[in-house]
Order: sequence, then structure tokens, then C-alpha cells
Amino acid sequence: MRESHIYDLLGSYNLKITPYISFAIDETPHIDFFPVVLKLESPKVVHKSDFGAVQLNINSYDELKNAKETIITNVSAKGILLDSDDRFLAAQMLSGIELYAGLVDDPIFGKTILFGKGGIELELYKDVCYIDIYADEEEIKRAINLTTISKIFHGFRGFEYDIEMAVELIHCVQKLSRDNPEIVELDFNPVILTNEGLKIVDARIKKGEVVVENLGSLRKNRPHFFTNERVALIGVSSDPTKVGYAIAHNALDFTGELFLVNAKGGELFGHTLYKNITEIVGDIDTAVIMIPSCFVVDTIKALIAKNIKNVIIISAGFKESGDFESENIIANLSQHYNFNVIGPNCLGYLESSKKLNATFGIGGLQGGELALLSQSGAVLSALMDKAYDAGIGFSHLVSCGNMVDLDFAQMIEMLNREESCKYISIYVEGIHQGKEFLRAIRESHKKIYIFKTGKSAQSQKAAFSHTGNLSGNYRMFKGLMESVGAKMEDNIEALLFNPFNEIKNICVVTNAGGPATILTDYIVDQGGTLYTLSDEERENLNSILPSNWSKNNPIDIIGDAMADRYEMALEIVSTFKEVDLVYVIITPQCMTDTLNIVKLCEREGAQKIYPILLGGHEMEEAQRYLRSKKIPFFKTLQSATSFL
Amino acid sequence: MRESHIYDLLGSYNLKITPYISFAIDETPHIDFFPVVLKLESPKVVHKSDFGAVQLNINSYDELKNAKETIITNVSAKGILLDSDDRFLAAQMLSGIELYAGLVDDPIFGKTILFGKGGIELELYKDVCYIDIYADEEEIKRAINLTTISKIFHGFRGFEYDIEMAVELIHCVQKLSRDNPEIVELDFNPVILTNEGLKIVDARIKKGEVVVENLGSLRKNRPHFFTNERVALIGVSSDPTKVGYAIAHNALDFTGELFLVNAKGGELFGHTLYKNITEIVGDIDTAVIMIPSCFVVDTIKALIAKNIKNVIIISAGFKESGDFESENIIANLSQHYNFNVIGPNCLGYLESSKKLNATFGIGGLQGGELALLSQSGAVLSALMDKAYDAGIGFSHLVSCGNMVDLDFAQMIEMLNREESCKYISIYVEGIHQGKEFLRAIRESHKKIYIFKTGKSAQSQKAAFSHTGNLSGNYRMFKGLMESVGAKMEDNIEALLFNPFNEIKNICVVTNAGGPATILTDYIVDQGGTLYTLSDEERENLNSILPSNWSKNNPIDIIGDAMADRYEMALEIVSTFKEVDLVYVIITPQCMTDTLNIVKLCEREGAQKIYPILLGGHEMEEAQRYLRSKKIPFFKTLQSATSFL
Repeated sequence: MRESHIYDLLGSYNLKITPYISFAIDETPHIDFFPVVLKLESPKVVHKSDFGAVQLNINSYDELKNAKETIITNVSAKGILLDSDDRFLAAQMLSGIELYAGLVDDPIFGKTILFGKGGIELELYKDVCYIDIYADEEEIKRAINLTTISKIFHGFRGFEYDIEMAVELIHCVQKLSRDNPEIVELDFNPVILTNEGLKIVDARIKKGEVVVENLGSLRKNRPHFFTNERVALIGVSSDPTKVGYAIAHNALDFTGELFLVNAKGGELFGHTLYKNITEIVGDIDTAVIMIPSCFVVDTIKALIAKNIKNVIIISAGFKESGDFESENIIANLSQHYNFNVIGPNCLGYLESSKKLNATFGIGGLQGGELALLSQSGAVLSALMDKAYDAGIGFSHLVSCGNMVDLDFAQMIEMLNREESCKYISIYVEGIHQGKEFLRAIRESHKKIYIFKTGKSAQSQKAAFSHTGNLSGNYRMFKGLMESVGAKMEDNIEALLFNPFNEIKNICVVTNAGGPATILTDYIVDQGGTLYTLSDEERENLNSILPSNWSKNNPIDIIGDAMADRYEMALEIVSTFKEVDLVYVIITPQCMTDTLNIVKLCEREGAQKIYPILLGGHEMEEAQRYLRSKKIPFFKTLQSATSFL
Repeated sequence: MRESHIYDLLGSYNLKITPYISFAIDETPHIDFFPVVLKLESPKVVHKSDFGAVQLNINSYDELKNAKETIITNVSAKGILLDSDDRFLAAQMLSGIELYAGLVDDPIFGKTILFGKGGIELELYKDVCYIDIYADEEEIKRAINLTTISKIFHGFRGFEYDIEMAVELIHCVQKLSRDNPEIVELDFNPVILTNEGLKIVDARIKKGEVVVENLGSLRKNRPHFFTNERVALIGVSSDPTKVGYAIAHNALDFTGELFLVNAKGGELFGHTLYKNITEIVGDIDTAVIMIPSCFVVDTIKALIAKNIKNVIIISAGFKESGDFESENIIANLSQHYNFNVIGPNCLGYLESSKKLNATFGIGGLQGGELALLSQSGAVLSALMDKAYDAGIGFSHLVSCGNMVDLDFAQMIEMLNREESCKYISIYVEGIHQGKEFLRAIRESHKKIYIFKTGKSAQSQKAAFSHTGNLSGNYRMFKGLMESVGAKMEDNIEALLFNPFNEIKNICVVTNAGGPATILTDYIVDQGGTLYTLSDEERENLNSILPSNWSKNNPIDIIGDAMADRYEMALEIVSTFKEVDLVYVIITPQCMTDTLNIVKLCEREGAQKIYPILLGGHEMEEAQRYLRSKKIPFFKTLQSATSFL
């Protein structure tokens, strides 16, 4: 598109452009907005700067004439002869703070707007946010405020620019993008911040193939995944080393009807084994399939006759082993007969309200308010172990596997219908249909926590040198998630701890100053707040602690502290009403009685108490004790604060 | 200082300034460098912008006249009447990339230069580096290249600016600063990057009290700390819960002469206990003092008669309990009689070459090539435990305590004279005499690794709104350390692992894809490199692994892998000559035989093999095994990569 045509288009969307005029080669335009920049408008010259076809700082008609001649000379030196189709564009030069706005067509998230610091800083500091073209005003503002440059909208150095100026620009770009789906790239750089609003100084638009927006493309009216009363486990085994044994064993407490299927028949855990699905009388809501992959499709076909609603395929050996065809068949069947599929190649799922643990992860997990979705079975399994040790329970667990059917967006919707679930944590390796994912998070009433891999591989590739390269990367994923209101985690364990830790004020009780100093750094780094002692509270501590205690939080009760001193200190700390988390640091000193100190951490109350055991093997006894009591504890200062 | 006087001063140091002219109020200057900015030069108006005493974008004599009148009107509206002493300054306006250079007088590091991105971005992106005024060219370049804006000196977007331009500017500021010690603050913002070099557009200088540079203030000709053959432990105890027992026990293997002192006499570990120092025949090189603090000064006086060279004061109860006086007395004695003091309030010290462990930390540590200095006894103790478990040995350990005498600079110098030490790791809480610290690191032949606390408390305070606030913070500490060539660590364990891990190529063997993906992110985040398999190596793995292995590094050998498959994979990986580190990820799958897998990690060879055991209690047996064999291992993906 010719630059002047672009400017006309932008103008029609109420986007402000610096004054400009387009004129024929032999024309002398009337200009009342010097200084200007003069640019050649010719389809023969794409990279204008490289051809010397841009001249800056033109202050008068004389200089304009010279500039025109310079450009003609420059391009003809490159072998390009201009004709009457070619034109010039003169645009006013503006100085001021340079911003950036752009649009990309991301393979995952579709049309996405970028906004942030423009000029050469765009590429240097990458201070941009990401905004869905369906984002509402609140989401747009949240996104803008994620950038550092947004400080200029909040009183930085006395600037009085209004964030509404930026919101208005974004709204215009959203409308422009939705009305013109053929626009696949757009770059406004710079956009100058003036008292009359944001003015676009330079614009570039690229049109491309019209990709149909995928919003609304998901299958409607699915059966609700979490309404299953009759569950069949297909492929159970009496061999304790097999998955079919582990799942059957974990599932025994199910409050609904459980059917165990094994082709050889027999008995397991007191249940008669059905040799065939057809032997089961009546419908089956949910089937968990653990048989070799080659039998899976036929089994599903048999289940369709049983009005199946949910199929969980544990079995591996599909896409990940090169068998895409079976996955396609399964996807088509689920579409045609309207049932949900999870997997294949997954760990199973868990639903606490029905005491159904249909996973081959650890058994004996507590119920809870957290739903955890994971794209990796091994990661889920490790998190289940950690949750077991820390006494964290789940409302739902879903191991997603190859995700042949149900995707995150639909699972989020379904979990929103589940009363027992209050928080949703998701371990993501990669998603499809990003717009649906964004919509589901936007509409979710439950807070969502996300950890995503693929950060580095992508960020290495992301050259950020022009807009096309900004897409498909971790930075965009994270930016969009934060805009839409999900919390992105840097640390995988935070998927377990974070939902339960809306920590306001932290207190530290320690027998050593050094580690407490390090911990303070980590706490503040993670956005936590160290509680400030009142004079009265300090006096209370004075009365029971040795005179050389730290007099401040972190409360250093000195290296010779035994359990009795820890106990008195914790007793007083428990009266600090605004403190909701207490770290108890224990370092091995000459006579530290670690076991008795950690026993103090069992204390029930409004405050969470997390012991941090520094040092090696002399802490093992205490660690075993804490594990047996399901009290969360930490062995490094860094891990202790990773969830804040 | 008047702006025109500042410009004159800068010009005399070869600093380039935009063309400017200073003229009296009623004067009409000759200007051939429009457009200009017009500023009032009057001692009555300090904050010119707030008084409307700066006018921009002046293109002609007419506009200059108007601008003068506007300024006079503006300041008289604020009640200020100008007289014949007041002047105007007109300076050329330049456009281009805005840089920043400044100078601060830091309470710790003294005069320090800042350089980086200028304009409003200075405060937004804080993209500046820190340079000592004694830094040489190599150090200056290293510092500049730590900034993001330095990319413009390395071909960013086709820019052809030479870094020498910036180095020249810094050299001029160094000379200016050394010649004019009364300059305590200096701000050049912006400095415009032009083809003729860096041009200063706006300059501010603040003069203040002349502080004497502290370089060269350290005591000379000290006895070398690590040449002690006759060591007295003063205050040993037969009570196993006492420090005096632990140190005596740890020190028994000392290859020199060891004297145990206890006022009551008797015997301990087969040594006769001296009741008094005077009973010891001959001189004492080194005394380790563990008696109550009230006896320490007198004991030191008695030691002076024994020609003491080194005093290590373990005893607490000095500065940290409010007793500054005794510390002063000790400092004065050490100065007057020229002996070294470490402590008080410390854990002791260790010297492997003489098998002297005079600490009350863990015993039985291996010898090694790493010297570790720590300002916290508890942190040192925890690191000693970790090192013991991981089989890492030390050449020297020093617990610094209250640092009444010997400081880091001198310890670095002394360790440079010790052949057995190859690397120096330092845990820092706070330093004095920063210029000496910088000098010692600059002159060190041994690589230095530093972890520093106080990051957050300081960075919270550091408002960064003007140069004065840039000082004394973590950012400056880190910046100067990196400029001078030390490696700053984000993680305290890296003080142990990093010196031995000059890792080039990493290979990952795993039984699960998800954790390997996360690990890859962490590796790349930390600057590590994943080795790329050659076709031949891939073929070799193909021949022994199941067909659905990952075909790439990370080498996913699939969830059903038992020890035999790990062994075959590691056998092939051991032939990858360029790989120097192998992570072995083990996740609990149905039949994983963790213990047999970790036994494979004992393998000797050119490659380090670090097992990562994910999952909870089912890993404990393997962990105990690894600990007993002193094989380093990790329990989280994050900690496994923290030292890279």
C-alpha cells in the first residue's frame, strides 16, 4: 500500500496522523507545516532508506526542492527511473516521546496488538504489551500498565498524559483490524505523544491471506465432563508394576459405580472383571482406557453403543510414536458422536467430590479447592508427590496428554461449573486456538495460574527486529495471559502453592542473620512485604529475647536459641494480626534442637508457618517428621519464596 | 556553577559540547547554529524548567527575541527581577540517539562514573553501567558492553558508531574527576551521538566537600595470614555441645604444632591443656580465641608478647551486642603491633594444605582449589554442609565475622599468594573501602565469584530519579563488580558449584519429556548450551533406544526406561567429546528403579554427571545413596541449573 493511501485509511478510523501531503513528481505542493520529511512513494522502491529515498529536516521550499533532486539522483544511481506514476510524500516532523503500536497475525493467538515504547528503543528494550483484538477497556488498560513506558500516564516526571489517549488508539486499531481481516501486519513507529493526542508519524501495513478468525469454532453442547456416575476402567491388571493395576487401585474409593474390564476376566480387589464392555448392563458415562494402542479405536466404537460421554485414553503409542491416523479417527468419532476425549498418552484424571482417582500417580491425596491441568504426565506426577508431602489437596486433576479433543478453553469452562473448584492451575507446553483460550480465561470466575515451557527455545529465535518476529513467542504468551487476567508463574511449584497464598505480610523468625538477609531479598524480589513491628510488639519481644536480638523483622533470636526460645517468639508473633505468613529459619548451630523446633510449626491458626531447614544431613530427622505430618517445608531460601 | 562556566571547564577536558554562546541580558549575540535552546543563567533560578526559564526550538533571531521576553516575563511573574549579572545561554539543539554520562560520590565506592541510555529512558529503563574512575580501557569497554544501548556500537540496525567514542568520553570524565576532587556530582543528559562524536547538550555539576580518596589507605606489610606453623586454640572445652570442643576436634589433624589452652588445665584428645598462654614455650603464630568476650582484650595483649601474627576471635558479644569499644581497642592493637585479626563473632577458618580446620562447622571436608570467604557464619556453615554432601573441597575457608581488621581486599591479595587456591568465592553482606576492593579484584590472578545480599532493601530505596540516588545500591555494586571482572551470582549455592563448572555443552538424558522441556528453558536462561547431536550420534542412540525416543537432545528415553536403558544411553553419551555436563532426569514412573539408575552416575570420566531426582519420598533411598557417595544431585530443575 502506498503510504498516502495508508494514511487515508488510518484517518478514516479516527487515527491521528501528522500533517502530510502527497504530490506528483513535477508538482510543487503547498506546505504550511515545516519542518517535514520527504519520502518517495513508488512501488519500485520498497526499502526507502536503503535507497536514499527519505530526506529529513526540510525547513523550506528551497530545501524541499533540493531534497527531491537528491532522492531522484539517489534512486537513479541504483538504476531506478521514476515516471509519472511515482509520487512524493511530505509529512511533518514532530518531536516528543516516541511510542509504538503494531498488529501481528500470530499462528496461535491470531490478530494481536502490540503497544509500547517506540523509536529505536522498541528493539533495544522490548517494552511492549500484547492486547487481543477482542480485549475490552479494562484488559487494554491492564496490558498497557504492564509496560514501563506506561509510567508517563501516571505522573512520571510530572507528565500529564492520559492513558485514555492510548486506549483510544488501541480501540481504533482493534476496529481497523476487525473490519479489515486482510491486514496481517501493521507498524506505527513512531507514534508521537503530543498534547493533542497520539500522532502517527510513520505507518506500514502488510496485507495477506484472510485467515478466518477461530473464535466460536469450538464444538458446542458437549456433555459436561465432570458428571460421570458409571465409570469403566478398561485394561485393569493384577500385576502391581502395571498402570492397569495402579489406576484400579487408586479408583477403588469412587462413590459411583465402577466397572473393571480385563479381556481374561477373573477378579481384582474384590471386583469381578468384565471380559468385554458389552457384558456391562446399561450405559457407561466414562471410560478409562489402558489397553495397547492398536485396540483403542475399536474399543471406543464399542463404547459409543453404550452412550459414552467421556473417554480418557491412558494408552501411549499415538501421535508421539508417529501414529497420527488413529488420533484423527478418534477425533472424528468424538465430534460425530459428541463425547469428550482426554489423552491419549496421559496419566488420567481425578475428581475429589466423587473420590475418583483415575490416575496412576500417587494415591491418598486429600481433597481440596485447586484444579490442576497438566500437559505433561511426569510433571503432574511430580506435582502430585509434592502436594502429597505438603498436604495440599485437589478438587480436580486432569492429565491432558496429546489433547486430541478437549482443550484448555473447554476444561476451564467446565471447571467454572464445578463448585468444589476455586482455583485453576495449568501446566502448558503449547496451545492451539489461542483466541478461545483467552476468551475462556476472560470469562472465568476462578483465578487462573499458568506455568509455560518453551520460553527459551522461542525467545532465542525471537529476533524482535521487526514485527513479524514478535509472534509465537513466550513473551507474547505471557503478555496476553497477564492482560487477560491470568497469573503467570516463573516456578512450577508455584502452581501448587500460589493459589493458597494471597500473602500480605510476612514475618521471619531466625537463629542466624545472614540467611535472613538473603531471604529478605528474595521476599522483596518476589513482591512480598516484610511486616513492620509496632513499638509494643518490639517491647513484647524484648521481654523474652536476649538483649542482642535484631530488634526488627526478620526477628533474629540469636544462634544459641533452643526450641523454648523459638516457642516464646512464635507465641508473640501469633498475636501479630496482620501477619499471614511466618518463615521459621533453622540453621545448624552448636546445640540447635531442630526436631523440637519444627514441631512448633504444627501450630494451628490464622498464620501459615513454613519452616526452612538449612544445612545438610543433620536436618533429615526433622524433615522426615514434617513429611509425616504433611507440613510444607523448604530446604532452600529460594524455593521458600518461589510462590510469593 | 553557571552553565557556560561548566561548558568552558568541559571543553578544557576535550569534552565536546554543542555550539553555545553566553550573552548579557541586553546583548544580541551572533548565532550561526539555529535551532537553539535558550536558557537563563542566573544564580537566582536553580530549577530553570519550573520557572519557565528554558525555551526550545528557536529558529531565528525574531524567535530568539520573543523567547528572551517570555523568560523575563515568566521569572518576574515568580517575583524574580533580573539584573546585569544575569545572562542568557543559547545552545544548539541536536537530534539523535540520547546517551547519558554522570559521576557520583558513593559512600562505599567513592567517585564512580555512570554511562548508558539518556533522555527520559534513563529513569525508565535504568540502562546504565558503572565505571571506577581508576578503570582502564579494558574495564571501561567491559562495563559499556553490559548495557543494552551498547548494541549501537556493535552494528545494531546498521549503526556504525565506534565504542571508542564512548571510551574517550569516559577517559575525559575520569581525568576531570581526578583533577577536580571537589566535583561530587555530574550529569550529562543528554549526550547526543553524532558522526563527529558524542556531544554534550546539557550539563550539571555539583561541587562539595573534598573527600580524600581512600585508595592506598590500607595497612602495608602485614604478616601473611596463611603462614602459621604454631597455632594456639584458646578456650577449648571437653563439653561436646561447646564451640571450644568442636574446634579442638576439627583441628586435630593440623600438620603444624597445636597448643590447646583451657584455664582449668587437664587433657583433651590426648593433648595436655595449657592453663595459660605464658606456659607455651616460644612464639605463637596464630591464636584462635573462644573465651568469653570480656577476657578477649587481655588475652590478645598476652599474645602480643608471643609475637602473634594472626588472631581469630570466635567469641561473640562485641559490636553486635553494642560493645564497640573493645573492637576499637583490638583494631588499634592490631595496627600498632602489626598482626592480623579475623572476627570477632565468627566461625573460624580452614587451611587445607596444613590440614587445619579451625572452624566449628562440619569436619571431614575434602581439600580443594576453592577459597570461600563469608560474612555470615550461618551461611558459611550451611555451605560447608552442602559442600560436604556434594564432595566439594576447599583450599581455604574464612568466616569474616565483624571484620574489625582484615578486609576482603587484603584477603584476596593473600589468597593470590597461595598456590593451592585457584578460585575465590565471597559471600558479602556489606563492604567498606570499595576502591580497595575493586583494586584487589582488578589485580587478582584468580577468578572471583560473589554473592551479595542487601539487594532489595537498597533497590527499594534507590529511586533512580536523579544521580544522587543511584549510589550505594546493589545495582552499582553488581555493575562495578562485573566491570572489574568478578562474576556476580544470583544464587548462593553457585558460590560452591560455579567455580568448577566452566560448562560448554550440556546433554540431558530423561525418562520424561515435560521436565526436560522445563530444564531446557532453565539451561538457556542461565546461558548454558544444549549440545546438538550429530547424525552419527543420533544413529547410535537409534540402535539402542525404542523407536519413539526424542531423536534429539534432551534425549528422552521414554517412561518405561529401567537402569539398563539409562546405562546404554549414558554409554553412548560418554563418547560425545564436546559434552562436559550430563543431567540425568529421573521421574517416578510405574517401574523406575531409581537406585540402580543413580548408581550409574558414579561413572568416572571427563563428563560431570548430575542426577536430578524429581518426585517425593520414593526418591529417598537413592538420595541417601548419593549422599553417602558424595555425588552432587538435585531435587528441583531450578536448583540444578542455578550455577550455570
